[in-house]
Amino acid sequence: MSEYIEHGRQGRSVGLTEKLFYTFAEPPGQLILESTARLGPITLAYEMVGEINSAGDNVILVCHALTGDSHMAGCYHHDDPRPGWWDSMIGPGKGIDTDRYCVICANILGGCMGSTGPSSINPATGKPYGLAFPVVTIGDMVKAQRALLDHLGVRSLLAVIGGSLGGMQALEWSVRYPELVRSCVALATTSHHSALAIAFNEIGRQAVMSDPNFNKGDYYSGPRPDLGLALARMIGHVTYLSDEAMRQKFGRRLQDRQDFSFNFDADFQVESYLRYQGSKFVQRFDANSYLYITKAADYYDLRQQHGHGSELEGFAGAKAKYLVVSFTSDWLYPTYQSRGLVKALKKNGLDVSFCEIEAQCGHDAFLLPNPRLSGLIGGFLARVSEEG
Amino acid sequence: MSEYIEHGRQGRSVGLTEKLFYTFAEPPGQLILESTARLGPITLAYEMVGEINSAGDNVILVCHALTGDSHMAGCYHHDDPRPGWWDSMIGPGKGIDTDRYCVICANILGGCMGSTGPSSINPATGKPYGLAFPVVTIGDMVKAQRALLDHLGVRSLLAVIGGSLGGMQALEWSVRYPELVRSCVALATTSHHSALAIAFNEIGRQAVMSDPNFNKGDYYSGPRPDLGLALARMIGHVTYLSDEAMRQKFGRRLQDRQDFSFNFDADFQVESYLRYQGSKFVQRFDANSYLYITKAADYYDLRQQHGHGSELEGFAGAKAKYLVVSFTSDWLYPTYQSRGLVKALKKNGLDVSFCEIEAQCGHDAFLLPNPRLSGLIGGFLARVSEEG
Repeated sequence: MSEYIEHGRQGRSVGLTEKLFYTFAEPPGQLILESTARLGPITLAYEMVGEINSAGDNVILVCHALTGDSHMAGCYHHDDPRPGWWDSMIGPGKGIDTDRYCVICANILGGCMGSTGPSSINPATGKPYGLAFPVVTIGDMVKAQRALLDHLGVRSLLAVIGGSLGGMQALEWSVRYPELVRSCVALATTSHHSALAIAFNEIGRQAVMSDPNFNKGDYYSGPRPDLGLALARMIGHVTYLSDEAMRQKFGRRLQDRQDFSFNFDADFQVESYLRYQGSKFVQRFDANSYLYITKAADYYDLRQQHGHGSELEGFAGAKAKYLVVSFTSDWLYPTYQSRGLVKALKKNGLDVSFCEIEAQCGHDAFLLPNPRLSGLIGGFLARVSEEG
Repeated sequence: MSEYIEHGRQGRSVGLTEKLFYTFAEPPGQLILESTARLGPITLAYEMVGEINSAGDNVILVCHALTGDSHMAGCYHHDDPRPGWWDSMIGPGKGIDTDRYCVICANILGGCMGSTGPSSINPATGKPYGLAFPVVTIGDMVKAQRALLDHLGVRSLLAVIGGSLGGMQALEWSVRYPELVRSCVALATTSHHSALAIAFNEIGRQAVMSDPNFNKGDYYSGPRPDLGLALARMIGHVTYLSDEAMRQKFGRRLQDRQDFSFNFDADFQVESYLRYQGSKFVQRFDANSYLYITKAADYYDLRQQHGHGSELEGFAGAKAKYLVVSFTSDWLYPTYQSRGLVKALKKNGLDVSFCEIEAQCGHDAFLLPNPRLSGLIGGFLARVSEEG
């Protein structure tokens, strides 16, 4: 942190960060997945900012969402000048204060941003896995993160924090490794994916798989299923917003025109915006990873995995302190799902804080700069830290 | 109505109905569209049940929604045994009582169920129009319906009734031809399409147009863009349901299996259901019609068309009595949109009844059997009929 870059209103940045890699489950070892399939070697790309203190009790694991990556804060070294996806939250003096805590974020297993996923080389063939990559679960992602933390010598986590798919990982951490997790911050998330959320993910997958360039997942040496993946992204994008957010952001405003085109061009700003989001996304994301990660989200059901179908029983072994946050306009993971979670945690006698934040921007609210959210998380971490 | 067929709980049916046709705007005449393009000849397929009384004051026009058609009630003659799409509402003794009223429903201009649309033969080329078909608007659809009613000798409408896209037509009728419309029943609809609704329609259109079989709309002599149209239908279908409806209908139940497939088959019932809905839809609907009709919905803004951007001014010339109905779980056309409509109508001193019906099934609620809705519409029609 010898160098700081100012990011406008977002306060001090952690400065330049570095993408690090750790490879494990190397032959003859392999990671045994929930499906019983075996996978290895596995590489995880990760970012680490702040320093582990002498007691080793200030480490925070941040888990990213569907299309995120390890680059959570600051700027990369060298060629990538993008600020991290949660730069508004993570940095010196911010909600997750890198002057106090050591913060780690790894690209998830199955991803396409440096960690092993379907676009990685399959050692058995010397070619990208494609659909030969085994289906991974949230539990598998968490197991891989655990291997990384072991490698880094981290023996306990002050907190595991995530929103959306990252929140599922955080919850999973808290019940899979209760001895390691002192607190869990679960934002805009759920203990089990709803039929509505599964439906949108399935349509996105169908869009990818319907693209003739998809070629059963074997497209790495030819044209990519960009049209299908762009469609999937557009669908996803709408579910992350809200009716109110879209009314304020776009309304019925036309794009660079005074009157209707009376053809099938993009007349409205919202149409141009979605087309742009779709085309931008395909430049940075792998279509197969989109399939695998959405499937992991759909499969996620903490109740089944850990509680024989009961949310109450699912958290029976948990020991962490919890902060659960939902957002009023989030219709993908609505507040009632967080309330169900909180109820189960409380009935297990756990220390739970819950807040529903008034926000008009839909599910994406957890990603956007929000002093209330930063204050909540900062206060919660300080309390957990003090209580030891 | 010589023959009655019982439809289970839905009461007496109007029996066998017949698909009728009327062709107008024949050369040298043409219909001038809102885009200024000219179209002709135009055929409308329609269904007509009940009898016009001697005073000619008992005629009701029913307007169908996006994927509906003229077959609103009873069964077709001959080869099509499907009950009409609103058979629960239209029939002897039902909400729209065919013992008292003469009810007419025409397939919309731009459709693919017998009325002129992009799959019709373009007289200039002898081949289907495809994308040479002009973009039509809700106003154009209403103008075409007006031509049909003139042909049938109908000089006034007791009511024009519709839900969703049909509701837009009903509202448009009431401001475009105020002298002809004694009442207007607008269900689950809006005076202007929201950014959210446009977004979902645009993604559906992109799905169709991204299908390589789409071939710029010229696919009638080859393979059809079934995958794209199926995707569009799946997207639409989810927006017609609700989180609660999907939880009750599907939850996280698996389809014909005990455990996850750990591949990209349909694991969940909701996935199978959507795939089935998509594949069923392409058998009965034309992809180009899907583009044209969704575009008409997106273009619809009664405020711009009739009120210089003001909803209040938009209804300044209206004379009808209104019944506006919304449904609690409809997130595509939420209740606040109906309230805006009602406010503008009331400020214009019009006779307005408004009801928000508690329903868990989302936007589709207006189509489903509902004694409350039938009672509301039946009572409203009786009152308008008596008040003369």
